[in-house]
Amino acid sequence: MMDKEEAAIQRSCFASDNNAGVHPEILASIYKVNSGHVLAYGDDPFTKTAIKQVQKEFGTDGEVFFVFNGTGANVSALATVTRPFQAIICPRTAHINVDECSSPERFIGCKLIDVDAPYGKITPAAIDPFLSSLGDEHQAQPKVVSITQATELGTVYRPEEIRILADYVHRHGMFLHMDGARLANAAAFLGCSLRDLTGDCGVDMLSFGGTKNGLMYGEAVIFFDQVLARDYRYTRKQTTQLASKMRYIAVQFERLLEHELWRENALHANRMAALLADLVRELPDLSIAYPVEANAVFVKMPKESLERLRSEFFFYITEDSGQLARWMTSFDTREEDVRRFGEAVAESLRE
Amino acid sequence: MMDKEEAAIQRSCFASDNNAGVHPEILASIYKVNSGHVLAYGDDPFTKTAIKQVQKEFGTDGEVFFVFNGTGANVSALATVTRPFQAIICPRTAHINVDECSSPERFIGCKLIDVDAPYGKITPAAIDPFLSSLGDEHQAQPKVVSITQATELGTVYRPEEIRILADYVHRHGMFLHMDGARLANAAAFLGCSLRDLTGDCGVDMLSFGGTKNGLMYGEAVIFFDQVLARDYRYTRKQTTQLASKMRYIAVQFERLLEHELWRENALHANRMAALLADLVRELPDLSIAYPVEANAVFVKMPKESLERLRSEFFFYITEDSGQLARWMTSFDTREEDVRRFGEAVAESLRE
Amino acid sequence: MMDKEEAAIQRSCFASDNNAGVHPEILASIYKVNSGHVLAYGDDPFTKTAIKQVQKEFGTDGEVFFVFNGTGANVSALATVTRPFQAIICPRTAHINVDECSSPERFIGCKLIDVDAPYGKITPAAIDPFLSSLGDEHQAQPKVVSITQATELGTVYRPEEIRILADYVHRHGMFLHMDGARLANAAAFLGCSLRDLTGDCGVDMLSFGGTKNGLMYGEAVIFFDQVLARDYRYTRKQTTQLASKMRYIAVQFERLLEHELWRENALHANRMAALLADLVRELPDLSIAYPVEANAVFVKMPKESLERLRSEFFFYITEDSGQLARWMTSFDTREEDVRRFGEAVAESLRE
Amino acid sequence: MMDKEEAAIQRSCFASDNNAGVHPEILASIYKVNSGHVLAYGDDPFTKTAIKQVQKEFGTDGEVFFVFNGTGANVSALATVTRPFQAIICPRTAHINVDECSSPERFIGCKLIDVDAPYGKITPAAIDPFLSSLGDEHQAQPKVVSITQATELGTVYRPEEIRILADYVHRHGMFLHMDGARLANAAAFLGCSLRDLTGDCGVDMLSFGGTKNGLMYGEAVIFFDQVLARDYRYTRKQTTQLASKMRYIAVQFERLLEHELWRENALHANRMAALLADLVRELPDLSIAYPVEANAVFVKMPKESLERLRSEFFFYITEDSGQLARWMTSFDTREEDVRRFGEAVAESLRE
Repeated sequence: MMDKEEAAIQRSCFASDNNAGVHPEILASIYKVNSGHVLAYGDDPFTKTAIKQVQKEFGTDGEVFFVFNGTGANVSALATVTRPFQAIICPRTAHINVDECSSPERFIGCKLIDVDAPYGKITPAAIDPFLSSLGDEHQAQPKVVSITQATELGTVYRPEEIRILADYVHRHGMFLHMDGARLANAAAFLGCSLRDLTGDCGVDMLSFGGTKNGLMYGEAVIFFDQVLARDYRYTRKQTTQLASKMRYIAVQFERLLEHELWRENALHANRMAALLADLVRELPDLSIAYPVEANAVFVKMPKESLERLRSEFFFYITEDSGQLARWMTSFDTREEDVRRFGEAVAESLRE
Repeated sequence: MMDKEEAAIQRSCFASDNNAGVHPEILASIYKVNSGHVLAYGDDPFTKTAIKQVQKEFGTDGEVFFVFNGTGANVSALATVTRPFQAIICPRTAHINVDECSSPERFIGCKLIDVDAPYGKITPAAIDPFLSSLGDEHQAQPKVVSITQATELGTVYRPEEIRILADYVHRHGMFLHMDGARLANAAAFLGCSLRDLTGDCGVDMLSFGGTKNGLMYGEAVIFFDQVLARDYRYTRKQTTQLASKMRYIAVQFERLLEHELWRENALHANRMAALLADLVRELPDLSIAYPVEANAVFVKMPKESLERLRSEFFFYITEDSGQLARWMTSFDTREEDVRRFGEAVAESLRE
Repeated sequence: MMDKEEAAIQRSCFASDNNAGVHPEILASIYKVNSGHVLAYGDDPFTKTAIKQVQKEFGTDGEVFFVFNGTGANVSALATVTRPFQAIICPRTAHINVDECSSPERFIGCKLIDVDAPYGKITPAAIDPFLSSLGDEHQAQPKVVSITQATELGTVYRPEEIRILADYVHRHGMFLHMDGARLANAAAFLGCSLRDLTGDCGVDMLSFGGTKNGLMYGEAVIFFDQVLARDYRYTRKQTTQLASKMRYIAVQFERLLEHELWRENALHANRMAALLADLVRELPDLSIAYPVEANAVFVKMPKESLERLRSEFFFYITEDSGQLARWMTSFDTREEDVRRFGEAVAESLRE
Repeated sequence: MMDKEEAAIQRSCFASDNNAGVHPEILASIYKVNSGHVLAYGDDPFTKTAIKQVQKEFGTDGEVFFVFNGTGANVSALATVTRPFQAIICPRTAHINVDECSSPERFIGCKLIDVDAPYGKITPAAIDPFLSSLGDEHQAQPKVVSITQATELGTVYRPEEIRILADYVHRHGMFLHMDGARLANAAAFLGCSLRDLTGDCGVDMLSFGGTKNGLMYGEAVIFFDQVLARDYRYTRKQTTQLASKMRYIAVQFERLLEHELWRENALHANRMAALLADLVRELPDLSIAYPVEANAVFVKMPKESLERLRSEFFFYITEDSGQLARWMTSFDTREEDVRRFGEAVAESLRE
């Protein structure tokens, strides 16, 4: 029998991968660096080591920086390569567009041009109409295209899709930014390396997420071309994203990359999402809204069923219609919880 | 005999209280909350408990929020009560003025009016000339006075000094903000409570620091009047300072306040600073620049002596002259290190 | 026979109402105030008189301010009622969205949410889905809806459409802003007064344009509720829109309102647009894209015909397809030029 | 005998050169371009001609742009060469520092570092201490030094002083900006050309003022190095400083430069200031505060005398003490008014 707290925890276990705790190995790694004084703000040996490890993993001699969180990573990375009269093109569903309280606009001063993106994925064809403004002083000048991998809808760009985007973007004098809050889930799904989906595909700047994959806090910002990082130290500080006790972020990343813990965590989360999708796919009156590739399952269900289900479990309804639900899994999702939840879904549809 | 790493650690142990690690009890507290899923972004029971504890400690029913770091706390707190055409008056030495890479200006759009402040402390008389601009559309309109407690120079405002400032500030329709990155050190020095120096003195908004006093990361922003906090949730998010896994900041604050661990840590740091000051005070060619009240010792010494000392120890020279040095102590400074450093100072002056 | 300069002038006479000169009566009015010293920045008798006249014309005791240009009017008006975490909802075609180089985003820090708007006109139904973000700290908070009257597509909101929008907007705690760069053309089309379309319909803030209707430079910003204007003086100055020699803008507005010169000018421009539409409406392979209500005619024509026509006349193609053209008329468009242009259009389609 | 209006005009005739009207020749020039349609936003023949004339006058093939006003000129020019993490160093008395309502901070996001500047003139020695922050990510990075010529205190930099500043500034990788709102007065005082004080001295960007020297409105922004102007078109638009009917600004500048009307106007204003200074210099209890070089006279007088004088004449008191007054002359100041004012000053001191 579950006690009350356990029940509460279970209630929200499909709401968000941000609701998970810290992976035990990550937490353990923090202990190891907690002795004595080291220089603050990243000028310490732990940070230097972690940076090297990130560079190695991503096969780059580009610049690596650690920051606190995903919004901070995105905003500071975009700010450092953008002038306020320029524009950032992104899918309508992009986190920077809908979930960062217009922090990019405020901090950078620029316009976000949000374009249609079926399944959360953007293509050159969708970007094209917005490039006619290039050279017209009356219009914000597109300078960056930002994509999310895995997307906010749980789908995954294939390497060749990214490569095509990167070529297109570069041909028009722009940069390609990737919000990789769930990059690990994408790589796990595709069975490829992290570099296969980023620097090797032409990505210029990456926000590499840790928090959604078992870290306590911390994201890495990677510039695959050192030139782009020239002013980033100042931008990071000005964005309020320079951590004083940097070693505690750095070591988490070191551990995340070690023995590909990132893949292990992501694979598990993806598997749980796939399992959940399989459990509900055939249910009557339910349809899977987007391909289940990473760790999210979006389903369309009758409003009343969703409401019944929500009386027992907390998760987000992502559309005004009240019929589109998002279920997320994480590194610590338990198979038994997935099965129990699947049953509850079936139950909610039966009533 | 010291090994190499130990030596490196010792080298920088008077450079900054940011160089210290995490207090063992704080680290232990993190373990306790690391189980299962809770709602992200502060909507969890651990955060709610910690907020209540902060409110109790500060004797306020005002609003409490946790953020990542000090610059983030200052900028977001100031931003939420300020419009871009308004100005923030602060001592010339203020962290917001000289150590935040003009993050306040960028994020808020306002002017910082930095005024003379002997020993880092500002008075109504120093503010007065800048209020003549009130009502003149050509000039930024003063709206906030920001003070730092303990100051960046290691000195401490007395409660009556704060009260006088608060009365003055309120009389002119402005708010009083306190950057309390080292508030604990001030309260420890004065033997008073945290509320004695803040809400009870008329402070409107407080950045209450944790990182410099034994936390891994995290600051609290406190609005003693709930009305001022009305929009803060949005401002915090937009400043990139909303942590997803909030429980890990919250529990650190809970532990910091429990059994007044904050005071214990701060008292120790203060004592080590006082000891260091005592050890060097009588040395020839050395003078203590400011009253040693919190955990900083500023000394004037011949440039050559400082350079000799710096070949062995790392610390900051804070003036172009090359003759003013800052030595900081922290919760984990060891008495033996202080004594060894004191000897090295004496040695550097002898040569 | 036309000389070269005359020819050049004629070439662009359907490109934009910004290409016209200054109405002779407006220019004459400037002479009248050009004697001696008066206080700068609007503290002069001419400005006071003009403000009263604007108030009278708009039937309001709200606040009236003069600024240099339309972008300045829009940005400063929106900035003064908006905080950076808030959002401005506008039609996708809005000038603030596509023709101000993201000046609103830079200056205000906010997000512009651009929504679908057939014929450039927005409705509550189009706004509705974006209000679900209200109260969610992750999303920019809608605070203003901005409409353009007449629209950028030459169409005109009816008073009852504005009233419905205003009621809707106010019900949700938002403000209604009108970009009235061509408000005169709208009122002339509807045969109503300026107040009928603004304050009397619930508009909160108006950018009332002069430059497109015969002025040399200058727009008026009107707040129908004085409370909204409280900080505007500072915002206007900070937006770089405070003119020192204000009398020269003020007197132009005074003259524009006198004997309804605004209506005379706008009526003429509208009539010329209607005439042009009539001349081309029945041509083969040409269709009028939007109702011709104000002083713009949008036509769809074969790309090749448009290119032929553009070899002789300069005007803007407003769609990537190369098949949508915009022809504008102004207070000084000559009927003979319209007829000649109409013939040229017919000619271009014949070839 | 004076009528009431005449009296009012005379009352404020020493308050500001912004209070003057438009020079008749300037006004006449506007008529000449008021016929027919030309392309808006500066793409017209009148603007092209005026640009060439400015280039010739300043002996540069740099880029020239027209804007509405001085604050707009300064802010847009500074914004285009500055990133938000950088700082602008200026004299404490600079217009951008005290009279632009922190428009630079809001628009650029940067810090203004205001330094001591006796008589309004800055020197390398005063700048030097602020360059120690270069390379330190915690501090805003100085990138521009901005000087005002003639200064806000009516004094004038000599060419060699500017050259020394320019060399110093360039040696440290920075740019030199000149706020030339009263550049004409400086050149008139020194009997030199405009280029002698700007491009030929190493000035990188110039705000060349017209409004204070007989124009209705309009300033020119000049980049002596074309590279610096690369993005300026966008910045000008985004700053809300792009005029649609540009020809009306352009032609004013053309006329101002023709036959050195600028010098004639400035010389007269300077002479009137010198005369006024001569008339009052020997009066008891009055002292001239700064060298009278351009068109301003600053005097120290007993508070009571100034108050008596202000009951009859309007002018600004520029210090809290109430004892420092500023009297400005302009192109249209009449000698008889100066003499009458001189007598009134003497009178006010006698009482």
